[in-house]
Amino acid sequence: MPSRPPEFAIRDFALPHVAALQAYTPGLQPGEPGWIKLNTNESPYPPSPQVVDALRREIGPDGAALRLYPNPTSAPLRAAVARLHGVAPEQVFIGNGADDVLNLLARCCCAPALAAGFALPSYSLYPVLVAIQDGRVVALDFDRSMRLPVEAIAASTAKIFFLTSPNAPTGVGFATADIAAILRRFRGLLVVDETYAAFADEDAAALVHAHANLCLVRTFSKSHCLAGMRVGYAVADPAVVGLLDRVKDSYNVSRLAQAAALAALGDPDYYAGLVRKTRATRDRVHQQWTTRLGWFTYPSQANFLFTEPRDRAGRAGLEVARRLYDHLYARKILVRHFGSHALTSSFLRISVGTDEQMLILQEHLEAWPKHA
Amino acid sequence: MPSRPPEFAIRDFALPHVAALQAYTPGLQPGEPGWIKLNTNESPYPPSPQVVDALRREIGPDGAALRLYPNPTSAPLRAAVARLHGVAPEQVFIGNGADDVLNLLARCCCAPALAAGFALPSYSLYPVLVAIQDGRVVALDFDRSMRLPVEAIAASTAKIFFLTSPNAPTGVGFATADIAAILRRFRGLLVVDETYAAFADEDAAALVHAHANLCLVRTFSKSHCLAGMRVGYAVADPAVVGLLDRVKDSYNVSRLAQAAALAALGDPDYYAGLVRKTRATRDRVHQQWTTRLGWFTYPSQANFLFTEPRDRAGRAGLEVARRLYDHLYARKILVRHFGSHALTSSFLRISVGTDEQMLILQEHLEAWPKHA
Repeated sequence: MPSRPPEFAIRDFALPHVAALQAYTPGLQPGEPGWIKLNTNESPYPPSPQVVDALRREIGPDGAALRLYPNPTSAPLRAAVARLHGVAPEQVFIGNGADDVLNLLARCCCAPALAAGFALPSYSLYPVLVAIQDGRVVALDFDRSMRLPVEAIAASTAKIFFLTSPNAPTGVGFATADIAAILRRFRGLLVVDETYAAFADEDAAALVHAHANLCLVRTFSKSHCLAGMRVGYAVADPAVVGLLDRVKDSYNVSRLAQAAALAALGDPDYYAGLVRKTRATRDRVHQQWTTRLGWFTYPSQANFLFTEPRDRAGRAGLEVARRLYDHLYARKILVRHFGSHALTSSFLRISVGTDEQMLILQEHLEAWPKHA
Repeated sequence: MPSRPPEFAIRDFALPHVAALQAYTPGLQPGEPGWIKLNTNESPYPPSPQVVDALRREIGPDGAALRLYPNPTSAPLRAAVARLHGVAPEQVFIGNGADDVLNLLARCCCAPALAAGFALPSYSLYPVLVAIQDGRVVALDFDRSMRLPVEAIAASTAKIFFLTSPNAPTGVGFATADIAAILRRFRGLLVVDETYAAFADEDAAALVHAHANLCLVRTFSKSHCLAGMRVGYAVADPAVVGLLDRVKDSYNVSRLAQAAALAALGDPDYYAGLVRKTRATRDRVHQQWTTRLGWFTYPSQANFLFTEPRDRAGRAGLEVARRLYDHLYARKILVRHFGSHALTSSFLRISVGTDEQMLILQEHLEAWPKHA
């Protein structure tokens, strides 16, 4: 390690708010096999065979194409996403995952003098993105009903408001009509993060045609089984896309990521089948947990369930959730516990895996109260 | 396109300095084949066969691994880079290309109240990265000798100084002793962007062991033939890496990018051979241009040459360079012209291609004065 001269310290060059920052904590990604991984809402299924073919074609016999920079604007993928949503290519932005898109939106709109909003609990990356900008925060609170605070968002003075719909980590979906009601009155940019919308009964995509203050964000990570490839996108007014284009990295999406996402869009039937399967598994498991286990579980519009476990004595709470987390972890089943918010600390968020994985989980959950 | 209500405009939510921003202009990436592409300093050779094997292994028969998020810190790649440089893994940061690393450094250190420095001409992304932060700029000037302004950088009040070594677009290398002299006296963070260092006689890598205010930046895009994959890295004091870790995207480098870069590091002999070949081609072409064409061409320590073409009458200048650019473009040879700086506008930057490509180029260059 370099010997740092005593007169040189981080505070000599780093922005104080960055040096003081608490980074986002992603879910565990175990390196070794053997885990039932239900902690980061990945698909339990492989991507379309057309994706694999497209990757092999792009790599070719000797990888020669990889020596060349990717298309800087992901133009063919923008065009395909534009067709999918019935918008102009100038209304589409492609990012290195949806997180890249959200991060760039924060860079365009968040600053100490301006307010950025979100409702809690939600995707815990938003506060981090605003903090990196040293931005001012307007945090609204869900109550246990998890009903969308339509009035509060519409009346908010935030310049940008991040809304996950369906929400995470609860899985609760929001009515498109409610989102439209917000858009009609909210005076900033409403970012509707539809990471999980493929699994929902309705989504806000059609609203981009009528509302210039809507920025829809989607990802290939969940419903398209490509979390490892890093592709997400925004659909918005061309002026919003123009802002994102100004602040993005020149070549933010790799050649293989562009090829994979493009191929995924070319096989909608495959993905519709996976979504049907995931929804069926989800709804069956929701039924089991609420009736057989008697655990309160939010109705989910996503590919995960948010459930409040009870021990043998019928108690729920942070300690009970933590104990079940540990119990499952010891059995190599990985789920997620958000212990720092009052409305999430007594719950576990559990991704919807395959039927086989959920059967193994179910056995452990039913046996657990004997241990607890 | 959405009808934007008259009361809603970009200025209602966007930061004014972002809305006014001029984005970085990357070199052309023609979609169709048939071009001799000498404009963005990519390698003309494919990556190591071990890279192709590693990608195929990671994709597997059905792409199942791609459904899972990548390692968030690129831990195995960090460890391999750390071994390469003889530092601790805590001193290595992996980015989505070197641009991601440079961008994150700007986020950590640039703000309206603080000065960020660079010398002109150099990599034209730096001013954009500082502008995205609305940062204050201290721009130093090279003169036509392109000698490193050691005293001026050492005495600069910048919190962060971006130095490309060897420099772009000139190809001129800087002595490690000069960089060490800067590090001993400069009171901010010196970012030495060694994108082209693999092609140089010397580099600054060893200085990280002694100087906590050095951040070395490298890329897999040029010498490792992986521009399409997007992987770059920083080697620095653990405190600097800790800052970058706070502001990076959670999963900034895809699974395939990590696998490709790791495999590339496993085949140093292959890449040493390509570097030898590129240097030999470069030095031969430099000789031809200076002697046979009589064009002033900076001695290059990179994988490109910066040359000042002369027309039939022996004139050089912006118009002459522009005409040669157009002449080559019409013949499907793509080079780069930086017309906006007095020290670059009479030059063309031409990447070192294969011997065969450079032979075709040479014929066009020798025939050109008849047209000019």
